[in-house]
Amino acid sequence: MMARDSAATRARILDAAIDEFTAYGLAGARIDRIAETAGANKRSIYVYFENKELLFNAALHRVLSDLTAAVPLTEDDLPGFAGRMFDYTLAHPQAVRMNMWRKLERPAAGPNEKDLYATKINAMSAGHSSSASGLPPTDLIVLIFGLAASWMISPDDLLSADGSDPTSPDRIAVHRAALVEAARRICAPERLPNN
Amino acid sequence: MMARDSAATRARILDAAIDEFTAYGLAGARIDRIAETAGANKRSIYVYFENKELLFNAALHRVLSDLTAAVPLTEDDLPGFAGRMFDYTLAHPQAVRMNMWRKLERPAAGPNEKDLYATKINAMSAGHSSSASGLPPTDLIVLIFGLAASWMISPDDLLSADGSDPTSPDRIAVHRAALVEAARRICAPERLPNN
Repeated sequence: MMARDSAATRARILDAAIDEFTAYGLAGARIDRIAETAGANKRSIYVYFENKELLFNAALHRVLSDLTAAVPLTEDDLPGFAGRMFDYTLAHPQAVRMNMWRKLERPAAGPNEKDLYATKINAMSAGHSSSASGLPPTDLIVLIFGLAASWMISPDDLLSADGSDPTSPDRIAVHRAALVEAARRICAPERLPNN
Repeated sequence: MMARDSAATRARILDAAIDEFTAYGLAGARIDRIAETAGANKRSIYVYFENKELLFNAALHRVLSDLTAAVPLTEDDLPGFAGRMFDYTLAHPQAVRMNMWRKLERPAAGPNEKDLYATKINAMSAGHSSSASGLPPTDLIVLIFGLAASWMISPDDLLSADGSDPTSPDRIAVHRAALVEAARRICAPERLPNN
């Protein structure tokens, strides 16, 4: 059993690691800085997490598990999911950044979510409301993810090209509404041509 | 005027830098490796590009200018643009990765595209076919970018959860069709409720 002090130290190290990896990624992160932020010594970091790569894995796991718990994939309400995902990632930029660092530096890291996605895709294939869209379930989820992330991955030059301030709450509310409406259109039952 | 040999050396350095930054990003890149790949000495890299940050800027500028030239933003055909952007980024993963590295490590770098986007947004605001969608022009472009990028930013666990191979040409063709169809639905004239 881990003593209370040890558990508290480990938690402080993990919090500091999330901040450090979010800002600098795996290659750019410095164990020295993590130790300093956590008020721990470097040796304790290696005792609890072994090496920088495994500390990155632990940080990624925490951030993505928090995301999945906070924004469950509601396969019967994908437009609502898109909006909630947008809200969460706007409030928690570390989720977006850690995901990008993973894609770039350590694609095999992170929680195993294959079973979770397979369950959702099976549910959607079985005569679910979203199947009326006529799009394959996997692609539908992929496209909804893309819509929810589009604001965060777009270049600053585009977001401010119309003269608005992309950080203002009013502007963000306009984008959220456009995003949810776009998701609704993608999920809507297929119209026949000329109908 | 730059002698022919100098121009060739500079070009080899830039090509090697694009490969290195695409793989490792700004913090992770090593000037030693770039020099070795380019068959140039380290000193010549600093002569031509000054420092690692400016070499990154030059590499990003080349990759994004190539992208913009190869896939012009056709504001009167956004579904076609989404498909062409998907094709290009699939064939040129360095465009996607360099864009992510920029977002994470050096957001102010890259070609200034504000005027380009402002021109497109003005054209779309002026009674253009896409304005029938009822969505603000900026948001429409942002969402189309998100759709085009969604396959590349989705976790591997999702792409393969239905048992298919996400690298097979047939699977990719299915996604491309879904993506273009989704863009078409987003751009389509608004339907009134109960219509």
